[in-house]
Amino acid sequence: MSDPTSPGTLMAAEMREQPRVLADLADRRTEIATAVTAVVPDDLAGVVLVARGSSDHAAVHARYLLEHVTGRPVALAAPSLHTRYDHRARLDGWLAVGVSQSGRTPEIVQTLASLGRAGARTLAVTNDGASPLADAAHGAVALAAGEERAVPATKTFTAQLAAFAHVAAALGTVPWPEGSWTEVTEAVRTVLADPQPAARLAAQLVDADELFTVGRGFLYPAALETALKIAETTGMHSSGWSSADLLHGPIAMAGPGLHALCLATPGPVAQDVAEVAAELGRRGVTVHAVTDDDQLLPTAAGRLAVPAGVPEALTPIVHVVRGQQLARALAIARDIDPDQPRGLAKVTPTT
Amino acid sequence: MSDPTSPGTLMAAEMREQPRVLADLADRRTEIATAVTAVVPDDLAGVVLVARGSSDHAAVHARYLLEHVTGRPVALAAPSLHTRYDHRARLDGWLAVGVSQSGRTPEIVQTLASLGRAGARTLAVTNDGASPLADAAHGAVALAAGEERAVPATKTFTAQLAAFAHVAAALGTVPWPEGSWTEVTEAVRTVLADPQPAARLAAQLVDADELFTVGRGFLYPAALETALKIAETTGMHSSGWSSADLLHGPIAMAGPGLHALCLATPGPVAQDVAEVAAELGRRGVTVHAVTDDDQLLPTAAGRLAVPAGVPEALTPIVHVVRGQQLARALAIARDIDPDQPRGLAKVTPTT
Repeated sequence: MSDPTSPGTLMAAEMREQPRVLADLADRRTEIATAVTAVVPDDLAGVVLVARGSSDHAAVHARYLLEHVTGRPVALAAPSLHTRYDHRARLDGWLAVGVSQSGRTPEIVQTLASLGRAGARTLAVTNDGASPLADAAHGAVALAAGEERAVPATKTFTAQLAAFAHVAAALGTVPWPEGSWTEVTEAVRTVLADPQPAARLAAQLVDADELFTVGRGFLYPAALETALKIAETTGMHSSGWSSADLLHGPIAMAGPGLHALCLATPGPVAQDVAEVAAELGRRGVTVHAVTDDDQLLPTAAGRLAVPAGVPEALTPIVHVVRGQQLARALAIARDIDPDQPRGLAKVTPTT
Repeated sequence: MSDPTSPGTLMAAEMREQPRVLADLADRRTEIATAVTAVVPDDLAGVVLVARGSSDHAAVHARYLLEHVTGRPVALAAPSLHTRYDHRARLDGWLAVGVSQSGRTPEIVQTLASLGRAGARTLAVTNDGASPLADAAHGAVALAAGEERAVPATKTFTAQLAAFAHVAAALGTVPWPEGSWTEVTEAVRTVLADPQPAARLAAQLVDADELFTVGRGFLYPAALETALKIAETTGMHSSGWSSADLLHGPIAMAGPGLHALCLATPGPVAQDVAEVAAELGRRGVTVHAVTDDDQLLPTAAGRLAVPAGVPEALTPIVHVVRGQQLARALAIARDIDPDQPRGLAKVTPTT
């Protein structure tokens, strides 16, 4: 085993637990479905999600899944309305889901409780089923990923994505066959067994000033999370973009010196991401790819391959593990301990 | 008058029209209320907004206002679900609002039409009441701001904020007295008559690599829009943050060399922004302020004062004009014509 005090040991160990955590959640999907159906209103009016940070990126993925299965728009809550502005909501028939790894961020707990008082049925998605967030909710889905000690969320993040996929499956018809979890778990295992591509890309990025990550549709939340993981572990300026949003102005920031990491998989939005990658290249940006298809983004300078065959809606679970590897390798290459980046705590006590 | 071919002439002229545009919209608020009440369902189930770019920032402001008056969570649509994934929504009782200055971005038109086919009542908020977006909707609110030719949206953006405020007033009890529009219009006029503070701050930022803008609550959308305006006019790396989101990881990017522009006004979130400004300062960031209160952010290196007395929920209309001035001055200081930044078109044809 590696030296338990060397930089990034905790993060690596927690990343390696992901196949087990994902398999455990898949085994518990009947239990999760029971918890969800006990809470969800009969004639669901709408869904609102409450989250910050990495959990907010899991909520962005959840929003696609839950809109797909319920047919209702899914809102991401503005916590300040509840914690600062004494907002009076009317939420009979709504489902509110609070998402927090620790379940201990005060504003998430307060906002979910406020939504519950307004008539919503409330569900907590949290690592610890006995957290304050779970206590404040009508029902809870425990990730049961085990304690996470490295500051960057890894196993709890992929567990959140998987947990929401099981929540979605309890609410309607999801766009993947039930047997897909074996493929997802194996794909994550394959990525974890192959850290060299991320180490090579980290070497290319070690002196870079700034990175854009780009995705669309189901890979947009993976782009957001990869950008945040790199920002928090390395301090590098890193931001995540939907390919469509990038074209509405922010692409003016793109030029020589910028690196872009484009996340793509075959499907309805692959061409959109490829077109933005080409436009970034024309502006002098160094474009890299995270993809399961050699035909996509063929001119990428750096490539992080992921296994093919995972249904599109579940691909963020696999792509984001490449992002974790890159964030960890880049931090170490920059002489930062990714387990404890500068000035960040494991629980952020915003109110 | 200034040379009509000199850089930033169009943008300046369009900025100067804002008091007139805001006053015209205030005069038309009965007409707007009539258009809204003709469209909105009797027992409103929820609201979904469809937008990209600057219009998306107006939608973030609208979401606070419309949640406040309706008590329902307001969702921001994911257009790709409608334009790429053949999504089947169920939206009886919902109001869907499409927001686009030009009313000609294909994905916004297609998404609003898709929401309408799913049962929503649809409203277009667009500069031209005869645009494709207005044609696709059950009702329309025309900004009537006059043609906007500079690429950065200015008068159409503040007009969108004001139009949504009038839409909110038609749907419930808004948190400002009806006479506030005189103060808002006068405050914008006062800011426009005083361009020197922005020119001085631009001189401080001329060689800066990166800027964060920070707000919370009602000033969060103004922070987002100011960051985008600076990014698109100057190419400078500029990103907008909620003070709470910034603490959940991204603050690891903050250090010497970074500038931050903090937007604050007295009220429930002023302390949150002040605390983040102090934390940024401790990390070596150069902190500047846009505020109507000398007591807030007293140690700011640069200050863009705005007139006091505007109700908090309408302050973004005033603060964002300071952002327009800064973006324009910074572009000119960097030898870029803000009327036509590199590689951007007035209408972005995303699908």
